Amino acid sequence: MEALGYHVMLELYDCDREILNDRHKIEEYMLMAAKKAGATIIETAFHHFNPQGVSGVVVIAESHLAIHTWPEFGYAAVDVFTCGHTVDTFTAYRYLKEKFGAQIVKTYELKRGELFKPNMIAREHELKVEKLDFEKQVEDKSLGVMENA
Amino acid sequence: MEALGYHVMLELYDCDREILNDRHKIEEYMLMAAKKAGATIIETAFHHFNPQGVSGVVVIAESHLAIHTWPEFGYAAVDVFTCGHTVDTFTAYRYLKEKFGAQIVKTYELKRGELFKPNMIAREHELKVEKLDFEKQVEDKSLGVMENA
Repeated sequence: MEALGYHVMLELYDCDREILNDRHKIEEYMLMAAKKAGATIIETAFHHFNPQGVSGVVVIAESHLAIHTWPEFGYAAVDVFTCGHTVDTFTAYRYLKEKFGAQIVKTYELKRGELFKPNMIAREHELKVEKLDFEKQVEDKSLGVMENA
Repeated sequence: MEALGYHVMLELYDCDREILNDRHKIEEYMLMAAKKAGATIIETAFHHFNPQGVSGVVVIAESHLAIHTWPEFGYAAVDVFTCGHTVDTFTAYRYLKEKFGAQIVKTYELKRGELFKPNMIAREHELKVEKLDFEKQVEDKSLGVMENA
């Protein structure tokens, strides 16, 4: 099924804790990851928290990269959300894994904006397939998997 | 299992296409969604693409909100990534769904930064549980679900 976006979530564990608290290094690495992956950088926003931790986003022409770090746990959450076929997500992943010294990595992938056929029967069918493919749905019952407004 | 972050991905379909191409309205709605959810706004970065489409990120003290729109398909991808227990993600979701006029919504939830017990056996066990809970793993064989560096 055709999709507009490709979203990879990286869970980086057992990273270098000093780097995870270094706003400037993190911004440098995230920008370099975007460049190495072939993305076009539009804008960045990085912030160091007190007493520790860094959040940052790189808006790219092909969507975004984001990072949140917890130096006290040696953990960083990284998102690489791209559209089109020009960005090499794997290169960004390998680069960041090495730079942060991550010893354990978990990755998740989600296709974003899967395009439906223009009728509700097809939509429902596609959604069922989606649900089977991606078992872990929202646990909060108030957030529905599919809703008609 | 304890987790550091809570990541909700919203797939908004059949939205108001004019709004999806209006950078200022989108920024206003994303900021208001963050405020209504009780988040502390740190920084924003929004961009309108030529000929159409908007990307934007709101860095909050509790992580981030992000949006990418495809007006030509009536579709927006929204991420609400939070940490702690003070941000009401559901309020942000309801607000954005209404403002964008989304007729169909799919949502996914992912716990980020699940904390492992401090030995590899426990880690491996937790990862297996994780894998069962969240079937849709990275399809690209080069990105492993779990890797030791």
